Amino acid sequence: MREYYLGLDLGGTKILTGLSDKNGKILARSRRETEADLGEEKIIANMIETVEDVLHKTGLSREDVKTLGIGSPGPLDSQKGIIIENSNLPWKNVPIKAKMEKKLNINTILKNDANAAALGEKWFGVGREVDNMVYLTISTGVGGGAVINKKLFTGVNDNACELGHTVIDPDGPLCGCGNHGCLESFASGTAIGRMAREAAEAGKSRVILELADNKIEDIDAVICAQAAYRGDKTAQEIFDTAAFYLGIGLGNFVNIFNTEMIVLGGGVMKASDLFLDKAIEKMEEIALPGPLEIVEVRESELGSDIGLMGAVAVAMEDRLIAHD
Amino acid sequence: MREYYLGLDLGGTKILTGLSDKNGKILARSRRETEADLGEEKIIANMIETVEDVLHKTGLSREDVKTLGIGSPGPLDSQKGIIIENSNLPWKNVPIKAKMEKKLNINTILKNDANAAALGEKWFGVGREVDNMVYLTISTGVGGGAVINKKLFTGVNDNACELGHTVIDPDGPLCGCGNHGCLESFASGTAIGRMAREAAEAGKSRVILELADNKIEDIDAVICAQAAYRGDKTAQEIFDTAAFYLGIGLGNFVNIFNTEMIVLGGGVMKASDLFLDKAIEKMEEIALPGPLEIVEVRESELGSDIGLMGAVAVAMEDRLIAHD
Repeated sequence: MREYYLGLDLGGTKILTGLSDKNGKILARSRRETEADLGEEKIIANMIETVEDVLHKTGLSREDVKTLGIGSPGPLDSQKGIIIENSNLPWKNVPIKAKMEKKLNINTILKNDANAAALGEKWFGVGREVDNMVYLTISTGVGGGAVINKKLFTGVNDNACELGHTVIDPDGPLCGCGNHGCLESFASGTAIGRMAREAAEAGKSRVILELADNKIEDIDAVICAQAAYRGDKTAQEIFDTAAFYLGIGLGNFVNIFNTEMIVLGGGVMKASDLFLDKAIEKMEEIALPGPLEIVEVRESELGSDIGLMGAVAVAMEDRLIAHD
Repeated sequence: MREYYLGLDLGGTKILTGLSDKNGKILARSRRETEADLGEEKIIANMIETVEDVLHKTGLSREDVKTLGIGSPGPLDSQKGIIIENSNLPWKNVPIKAKMEKKLNINTILKNDANAAALGEKWFGVGREVDNMVYLTISTGVGGGAVINKKLFTGVNDNACELGHTVIDPDGPLCGCGNHGCLESFASGTAIGRMAREAAEAGKSRVILELADNKIEDIDAVICAQAAYRGDKTAQEIFDTAAFYLGIGLGNFVNIFNTEMIVLGGGVMKASDLFLDKAIEKMEEIALPGPLEIVEVRESELGSDIGLMGAVAVAMEDRLIAHD
């Protein structure tokens, strides 16, 4: 009987796969390099290898697995199970669902990583307590997902909750999507790194420059955070700017989703003490009293497991709802 | 057997009530002044009067009515059926549901007017064709509502979709909510009127001023539209500004809701030829390819009946979903 589940977190540099029992308990995990530069077939072979590895570790077979959930950066067509393109992987229009199903004979569901993470938080993270939540990942980019009445809000063709690509200041910086002033262009790790490089170039922060060994091109959000922790005023101002705009975004999401919880995750949240309080303060200004009253902002506690647990939650969503 | 429905559109100046059969066909309607200045008891008596009137016209009794739906401007607590306050009505925390149920012995549901209108469009308007839509009313203010998988998206405490109060430019004008640069502060009738008064005060448009008989305080969105129709460049520029920001808002909603349709209604849409094409053009810039591909922007065709049909849809929602 198929009563186990697989979750596969497909990243640009690594693949992390876990095998879960029917309660979401991870029985085995396997991690390896994506080897994105070696092309489509090799990446898929590496994905299969991690699946075989967790099966081997647990003594289970493919026939024991009900569903494989995959979380991947987009854009993708998750209804058809196709990765349309991916800035980290050298592929276009790869029918990942069909390929995995053919090779493994396991029902496969593909979701974008932020949507998957939202489900992971709902079922295995701080979102367990609520039926309605918004998840925002603040990482290289800013991505989002929403759970409404326990279910992932997918939109009509699985493109809902592109929260990082909501314009909050049309005079803002150019975003990767081609628009100006998206939330992502202010509050992502990429944006913080860009502001730090601009500050260093303008001679505004010796600390930032020193931390990068005077190599402006090496300055990123991590270095900016290090400088801020050393008390560098310019670096802290950069986080203040990110906080201001993040707060606007959060306030907008409160007014739109009227949700019980907003969960924040992603690598930039490791430095949350540099910006989160100010962002929440701004959010409280923007949000209307009605929806503000019932919302709580929480930090993800799943850490680097968020991608894996998101993929497992994608695989298990129907079961989790049915047995809740 | 209770198989009829009542819809009551509660406005600051008028009440419009309709009695509908189980298919949403309006059998009788009654309209009267709200008489908001005469206070709570009188307003409720006037509401009851319109209900008695449609019952009388159809020869039906209260016992024939299953549900009364009320659409009202907010903020309100629709779960408890309380109008918290209302800029047009002189009341605070009025338990409208309890009062109507006590006086009429008819199950009553209260929803904010924009949410009700979204349901009206879904079931009786252009939204009939789709299961997922966003409704945006561009009127004195800007309000919104969303239908997801046929159902009204209410949020946790019925405050979802305050789409007019999403900040899209923090350097923008002061909004009635206290923030700067909400969509409402750029694209509402109030905003257009404000921009037209500012232009007239600055001596930028003789046409606007003349249309208002040189009374700056009389300049509103209607006058601005009249000036634009006469070819006044300044008036058209004001609509261009509104279109620019409306387009940003629409683009954001496409990226957030990934819906099949956005329906635009409200009084300002009577002048839609002055701004809608430009707004859609901007929306298409902001929206990502995935969600843009499947969305269509439509103008409401319900006209001044939108409030009434929204209230009827509120009353009938469960039946409409069950029999769809």
